[in-house]
Parts: sequence; structure tokens; C-alpha cells
Amino acid sequence: MTTVAEAQKMAGPTLPVLDKGFIRLDAYEASDLSVVNAARVSFAKHKSAIEEEDVGLIRFLMKGRHTSPFEHGYFRFHVKVPIMVVREWHRHRTWSFNEWSGRYSVLQPEWYVPARDDIRHQVGKPGAYTFERVEEDGLARWVQDKVNRSCEEAFEAYELMLQRGIAKEQARLVLPVNTYTEMYASVDPLNLMRFLSLRNTEHAMFEIREYAKAMEELVKPIIPVTMEAFIAQGRML
Amino acid sequence: MTTVAEAQKMAGPTLPVLDKGFIRLDAYEASDLSVVNAARVSFAKHKSAIEEEDVGLIRFLMKGRHTSPFEHGYFRFHVKVPIMVVREWHRHRTWSFNEWSGRYSVLQPEWYVPARDDIRHQVGKPGAYTFERVEEDGLARWVQDKVNRSCEEAFEAYELMLQRGIAKEQARLVLPVNTYTEMYASVDPLNLMRFLSLRNTEHAMFEIREYAKAMEELVKPIIPVTMEAFIAQGRML
Amino acid sequence: MTTVAEAQKMAGPTLPVLDKGFIRLDAYEASDLSVVNAARVSFAKHKSAIEEEDVGLIRFLMKGRHTSPFEHGYFRFHVKVPIMVVREWHRHRTWSFNEWSGRYSVLQPEWYVPARDDIRHQVGKPGAYTFERVEEDGLARWVQDKVNRSCEEAFEAYELMLQRGIAKEQARLVLPVNTYTEMYASVDPLNLMRFLSLRNTEHAMFEIREYAKAMEELVKPIIPVTMEAFIAQGRML
Amino acid sequence: MTTVAEAQKMAGPTLPVLDKGFIRLDAYEASDLSVVNAARVSFAKHKSAIEEEDVGLIRFLMKGRHTSPFEHGYFRFHVKVPIMVVREWHRHRTWSFNEWSGRYSVLQPEWYVPARDDIRHQVGKPGAYTFERVEEDGLARWVQDKVNRSCEEAFEAYELMLQRGIAKEQARLVLPVNTYTEMYASVDPLNLMRFLSLRNTEHAMFEIREYAKAMEELVKPIIPVTMEAFIAQGRML
Repeated sequence: MTTVAEAQKMAGPTLPVLDKGFIRLDAYEASDLSVVNAARVSFAKHKSAIEEEDVGLIRFLMKGRHTSPFEHGYFRFHVKVPIMVVREWHRHRTWSFNEWSGRYSVLQPEWYVPARDDIRHQVGKPGAYTFERVEEDGLARWVQDKVNRSCEEAFEAYELMLQRGIAKEQARLVLPVNTYTEMYASVDPLNLMRFLSLRNTEHAMFEIREYAKAMEELVKPIIPVTMEAFIAQGRML
Repeated sequence: MTTVAEAQKMAGPTLPVLDKGFIRLDAYEASDLSVVNAARVSFAKHKSAIEEEDVGLIRFLMKGRHTSPFEHGYFRFHVKVPIMVVREWHRHRTWSFNEWSGRYSVLQPEWYVPARDDIRHQVGKPGAYTFERVEEDGLARWVQDKVNRSCEEAFEAYELMLQRGIAKEQARLVLPVNTYTEMYASVDPLNLMRFLSLRNTEHAMFEIREYAKAMEELVKPIIPVTMEAFIAQGRML
Repeated sequence: MTTVAEAQKMAGPTLPVLDKGFIRLDAYEASDLSVVNAARVSFAKHKSAIEEEDVGLIRFLMKGRHTSPFEHGYFRFHVKVPIMVVREWHRHRTWSFNEWSGRYSVLQPEWYVPARDDIRHQVGKPGAYTFERVEEDGLARWVQDKVNRSCEEAFEAYELMLQRGIAKEQARLVLPVNTYTEMYASVDPLNLMRFLSLRNTEHAMFEIREYAKAMEELVKPIIPVTMEAFIAQGRML
Repeated sequence: MTTVAEAQKMAGPTLPVLDKGFIRLDAYEASDLSVVNAARVSFAKHKSAIEEEDVGLIRFLMKGRHTSPFEHGYFRFHVKVPIMVVREWHRHRTWSFNEWSGRYSVLQPEWYVPARDDIRHQVGKPGAYTFERVEEDGLARWVQDKVNRSCEEAFEAYELMLQRGIAKEQARLVLPVNTYTEMYASVDPLNLMRFLSLRNTEHAMFEIREYAKAMEELVKPIIPVTMEAFIAQGRML
């Protein structure tokens, strides 16, 4: 599996996420100008550079939810991420994905352990949960130990089964959902923003939000006017 | 979580799958006639019953990959299924899904253990794997024990963390990918056949193929001409 | 081509739209209960009838834009509609369509002529157009004549080319975009509401809005709680 | 509306298509390497340059219809094209589109007239049509005249209605389906190939095939190994 250090040596900016994961912008073709040109083709107009008035146009499109001009771009990410985060990510059906396969290769003993400050209690009722940081140091450390020990044992069982020739796809049955995996994920700017509108909010699971925040940082410099308009209206789209 | 027995008391036919799972056809609106009418609208023709010549039409559409008339129908399934099977299922982006949430409710200690005859070795290279049944009885039983013991321990750790008030979404980090979950899954006939063309073949993972086979049994009586034509051409579409 | 009278004899309710078109609900499988069950599977709960508390649940889902439970249903429409309306309809990429083909069959000389009261002036600037009814009777009648005469001439040229053996797909080059066509169109409840949120508003083109309004009437009795919640929040989703 | 000459001065290669249309590759981010990396992430492998063995991998993926690695790329086209061709293009629901709007701006009197050698008879039955070039010079010229005259008259009626203040969206009712329009169209490599597999074949309408052929020429130098493998297996995918 790719380490954070290895990812940082590859092309494109990389941000570390959680304890062992990362998100790397592998490639892109996107610009505020392409939003403007896609919108102005309604009037058979074309520009070769963005102008002052176009900032207003992008804001108008965003506000009125005229979304189609935001589809004409592309981002490709390379991500190292725990399975239970991928599980939510894969529900976004407008993305393209290719992921590490536990059927074809041996999974490595790397799993997500929450940082001391990210361990939390759940308070309230379904539909209205809030989370509170675990204050007691002893409890937080106990959780980290519990997670580590449980995952170690699962990987031991996995490796024992592999040693006795059991099929990879069957041996991995026991592996936990916090096991790290790796994927390529492609998306257009509109559907990237739709991902952020659901995943970079206080209602999102903490762990996926960490990826969403990092993603937002990576794309901001590429489509600055678009992202500013998006954030200004509360990431609603 | 719904048991197989409970599912069998609900509306619609239910087939048990694997050791504790099921697939239930919750509802549908599909027919060979609707395929025919969608195709014949190309000539502004409409029929109220299927006729002999229409069997030929459906075969012609299937063979020539004129796929759009097969989209005008609907199946809704209720499924109990291990997470690692759902992971593959969710990659089919034309389906609609709602799944049991480990963020909102406590997951139950039910996990998939392969039947004695389904435990297998993996032989060959990536891109050309084959699987061979584990012949040695002792080894097969050892695998079942290993899986059971590992999952029991994971659920113990989970429950201990819940008892100390840790958030559900965080306590479940240690749960294995063979944990049973439950979902509603909706699809049109074309994309159901596309699922089968990838998942009801010898290249598919055994466990998802079991669901694909059961799904095929459930829909065959509803769109018999369509399914016969599909199967006759090797489930290629 | 199917007449309004013929459509009204087929199964399912039919509403006439514009001067010669219609929308017929050919079949469906949808209910408020299926929304509820798709939502409650998050907690592994299942109901066989909708209850008082479920009304609140549907409103909660709608308000919070928890959209996935609204995908588990199905509507199939049979529509007679002018080409320039289909052009907008086809931009809704989550629908399934099959349409009458001008390549395979001879198109019939039926075209849309706006009713006297629907003839309008366009006032204002791009992004902020408003429309005003043409008050002058003479002008309105002149427009109707102009449209009729122009379309008659186009169909004459079409038929002359067909008589001399020119390919249908080429002869139809001269036919106008208000020519009536016919299609089957399938969609789930969520994406039906998304269609309405864009097409049953004052910003929509008058002609497509007529279809959207009729569609809304047809589905309201089938998913009454869902539609009421949708309309109550201004058809925003 | 953009002329072919103007398009040729913009960034990216432009090919003229039909009598007044063009297809211009506005921008892209695609490579054979990104296909390889998306496939190799199944084994958590990454490459920074394509090697000999990767050619075989791409062919293996294509042949076995392992399609997902072909989704990780992007092409954006700027196209001038008659409406009846756009009508077929828009049925490809995995593309993103923005098109010139006859609601917001005045359409220009440019329409498609088939070249003398492209005027054709239609022979045979539905499902098995063939087309034969019109041999008789007089007939071919008569068709061109007929098309031109009919379109001139339609545009005259259009302009008269505009002069009297009728709304653009209503005046254009009389305009023919061979009127040129302009659009931006974005797609990933897989869905571009799926477009070609349906539109660059002898069963496709001549006019859309001309665009498909030009598109194929534009992308071949960018993903040469992928396109060679695709063409080698008869453009089936």
C-alpha cells in the first residue's frame, strides 16, 4: 500500500488525512473559464479569458441552481482511506472509482485508529445526534487499545488462513471495516460540490468530513470563483 | 435485523441465500409487454397484449443490444447480505439503495460463515484465478472456527465500547466485513440484467453469485421472454 | 400517432395537454409506505402499513434533503408532445426514454399551435425574462396562421421528398420543432420531483410546464404524503 | 454562431463536419497511463510511465469488458451541429451538455443541406434498412433546393414573428430540425467509446456518424493504446 511519504513524491499535491491516509490530486482539467463558456454557449458566445462580469455570472448560476455549466471539468483523486469511509463515498453514483481488491491481492495490516481528541460519545436521538469529545484520558486510551488489539487479532486470523492456502477473498472475511484501502476517484466540479454539500457539514461523519475538507483545499485554487460562490451560499447546491 | 423466517412472512417471494441471508422481491412493475410497447413506440404503435411476433422482437432487441426498451420496468428487493457483498453491489451505480446504518443503530452479531463445501483455495494468477474446494475436512472446520472466533471477539470489543458510551459509528470500526446488513435495492430490468451479466458468471465472487442466482429466479416468471432471450445469449448484454 | 381519444381508452388515467398532446400514466409501483420502509431500513425496521408518525418522517426526509428513500418507486408515462418540449425533457438524464423515430417511420402532419391565450411577448433581459400575453386579437390570430402555414409547407416538402423515395431520416430535415412526437418515459419518485422542481415553476417554458402540471396531478393520489410535503416546501428538493 | 474559421482559431484541434458544422476538442485530461494506474490500484500498484506490459493489460481490460479503469479521464468538445443530430447525442446520458438556447437568444439562419453525394434512398424494412446513394443528378439537386427553400421560408416566418415582438421560444416553433446549434459536450473515455460503438457503425445515421468519425480522430493521438484495442475488437464494448 502507498504510504503518505510515497504519495507526496508523486505528481500533484497531497494532503495527509486521519492517521495513515491521504488524498492526492492526481490530475485535473477544470477552470472557472470553462464554467463561463459552458453557460455562455446558451447565447453562442465564447471567451478566451475570464472577466469581471463573469464572476457575477458564476454567482448567478450558483444561486439559481443552474447547475449544468459546472459539469464541464474534471478532477482525479488518489486516496488512501478506511473501508467504512469508502462505503459512504461509493454512494455518490456520479463518481468513477477503482479500488484496491481484497480478492486479487493480500491486504496489509494498516487500520484506522482515531486520534485521542477525535474519540467521541454519541448524544441524542436518531435524526438529531450530536457528538461530544471523550474527556476522560483513560477511556480514550482504552478505546485506542481496544481498536488496535481487535484489529491485530483479525489480521492474525487473516494471515493464518492465507498461510493455509485459503482464498484471499474468503480469508479477508474477518477483516475490520477500518482497514485502509486505496482508490482512484474521478468526478466533475458539480458533483464534487454535491459531495461537499453532504460531507463537509456538521451532519457528516467526522472521518469522511476530514477527506471532504482536504478535497476542498485541493480544488479551491483551481476553480476559485466557483468555490467561493459555493461556500458563500453555505455549500448548498 | 430481519430473520429469514420473518422475511418469508412479508409480501412477495423470499429466497434464503448463504447461511443467514435472504433476497425478497418486495414489489415490481415489469412485463415483457412493456418492453414491446417501448420498442414499438418507435413506430407509434401500441399493444395491449403480447403476441407471437413480439417474442421475435424481444430476441432481436437483445441480440442487437437495442437496450433502451428494457429500462421501462421496476424491481424492488429487500436483501439481507454480508457487507463485503454489498461493497460489490454498490458499485452498480444505476441501482437505488438504502441500507442499515451502523451510525444510527446498533449492529447485531450476525456474520457470514462459509458452508463447509464453499470453503476454497485460490489457484493461478491475477486475471486468471480459479478456485478449488478445500477437500480436507479438518482444514474446512478450522476455517469456520477461525472465522467464528474472530468475529465473536470483534463483536465483544464493539459491545464493550458501546457500554462505555462510545459513539456507534466509532465503536463499529472493529466489526468485520462479513457482518450481515440489510438493504432495499431498486433497479430496472436492463440494469438488473447487467448486474447478472457480471455477477452470475464463473468469474464472479461465489457469495455475490448466490444472490445473483436467487435474483434471477425471482424475476424469471415476471419477464419470461426477456430472461429467456438474455440467458440464451450467454447473459451478455 | 395516438390520438387523445385513443389514449383515453388505454389503461391508466390520461390528461390532455396543449392542443393535441396528452400524458398517460401507463403503469406505476410507488407508495408513501415504500419511502417509509426505505428510510426505516437504516434501523432495520419494516412496516406493512403507514402510520401517523410516518407522515412526520416523510416531512423530515424532504426538509433535510435525505433523498435516497424517495428513489424506491416507479412511474411509466406515455406522452404525446411537441419535439421542442421533448428536447428539454431529455436533458433529465435519470429518466428512461423511448421515442417515435423519424428514421424508421413516416411522421404525421400534427404540430403544436399555441392557443389564442398562450401567445406571448418576451420582456426583459437574459436571466430575467418575463412573458406577457399578446392582447391584440389580430396579432394572436396572425401568429396562429403563420405557424400553421409554415408547418403545412414544411410537411408538403417532406411528403414530396418521401414520394420521390428520399430516405425518411433525410426528408424530415425540414420538419419543424413543434411537430408532435410520442414517447414512453420512466422515472422514480425522487427524479420525478426533481423534474417538477425545474419544470413546474414560473421560470419554466409554458409548454413543458403544462406537462409538468398534468404529471403532478397524475401522481398526487399515489404518493399523497410525499407530494404534499414536496409542494409545501415550494417544490424545492 | 461560431463559424468553422472562428473555431479553428480557438485552442485545441478542430475538424469541420457536414456543410457548416465542426467538432473542436476544447480540452482534455486523459492518457493510457491513467487507465493503467486505475487498473493497477486493484493491487495497490502505481506507475509514472507506461511500459510494454501495460499494452497487454489495456487489451486484456478491453477484451474482458473490465470497463471501470477507462472512466478516469476527460474530454470536452465544442460542437456545431444540426438539431436532429443533437437529438440522438443527448440520449447518451453519461455525457454533460450545455447548448445554445432558442429561448434566450435569436437563432441564426444556418441549416444543414446534405452534400450531393450524401442524398440517399432508404431500402428494406424496419430493423434492416439500407441506404443507397441517389444516382440521378436532377433529383439530388431538387432535394437540395427543396430543403433550402423550405428552411428559408421557415426562417422568414420566424423573423417576422420576432419583429412583431413574439417571444423567441414561441417564434422558433416553426424552425426545422436541421437548424444548426452549438454545444459543449463533456465525457470520459469509456463513455466516449460507448458513443462510438453505437454511432461510428454502419447502422448509425450518416450525419451523426460524421461527428463520431471526427471525434475518433481527435482522441486517437491522446489515448492511442486504448483506441487501438477498442477498434481492434470492432468497436464493441
